[in-house]
Amino acid sequence: MTESLSPTELACWRAYIESSQRLLTQIEDELRATSTLSFADYHVLVLLSEAPGQRLRMGELAGRLVFSPSRLTYQISAMQRRGLVVRQACPADRRGQEAVLTAAGLMALREAAPHHLASVRTHLMDDLDESEVAVLTRVFQRLGDRLRTTHSAAPTHG
Amino acid sequence: MTESLSPTELACWRAYIESSQRLLTQIEDELRATSTLSFADYHVLVLLSEAPGQRLRMGELAGRLVFSPSRLTYQISAMQRRGLVVRQACPADRRGQEAVLTAAGLMALREAAPHHLASVRTHLMDDLDESEVAVLTRVFQRLGDRLRTTHSAAPTHG
Repeated sequence: MTESLSPTELACWRAYIESSQRLLTQIEDELRATSTLSFADYHVLVLLSEAPGQRLRMGELAGRLVFSPSRLTYQISAMQRRGLVVRQACPADRRGQEAVLTAAGLMALREAAPHHLASVRTHLMDDLDESEVAVLTRVFQRLGDRLRTTHSAAPTHG
Repeated sequence: MTESLSPTELACWRAYIESSQRLLTQIEDELRATSTLSFADYHVLVLLSEAPGQRLRMGELAGRLVFSPSRLTYQISAMQRRGLVVRQACPADRRGQEAVLTAAGLMALREAAPHHLASVRTHLMDDLDESEVAVLTRVFQRLGDRLRTTHSAAPTHG
């Protein structure tokens, strides 16, 4: 059952996938314990906070989050009910919609961020030396660039 | 908002988290397109296929999958309805339950594995050189060992 990966590669894949699931579960548990945000909420707030005008088209946001359009609609609707974002028609294209960060959303992000980033430090970064950080950054930036260009199937229309 | 991580560390964390989400979405999409299995189904089948007697206690399986007990119950119930596993009382402890791989489960895994491992090769392994594979294996094995020992909160009782 392992004919298409060498034992070394299979060990790498398994260590990566199992430890990543464990890490993300741990970090999300701590995020939920110290804030009112899920990991997806947090990620939406970060992306909006860094976008020009603190707003992004729904299709752009779905592509960045790797969410299907229906999953994004569900996510943004839930965040809108909690006052963290609002949805508006795009100024340039009335058929499209944008998600816009609210002041309450920005405050929620600012409150959650120090605890969340401390979790990332504790569970991942403190355990890595400089050369390991450099290799992980290089590998995952290259992977992301490649996956974005070869599989940019996410709709750009919101 | 980034005071607890340096810019270099933040870039590493973001590349890792965003590319990992993109990679897992891509690999799960391909798994679902070439088999009847989700990524969680596949992972359960792999763990059971490698366990002595092709069976694991529910608590052990939850710990390995980093699933809550309720999520595991839901997952195993769905797989049982499809004939991939059965649940039995533990021989050693009648209060506990085990998940047991069926022949149909093993066949489903054997059919899915070549396509799935080819996805892993195409999207991740073919892009890594030997030294990168070695660093990723070392980092994620160490991370998994640390997270398992410091946060082994999963119940051992099924």
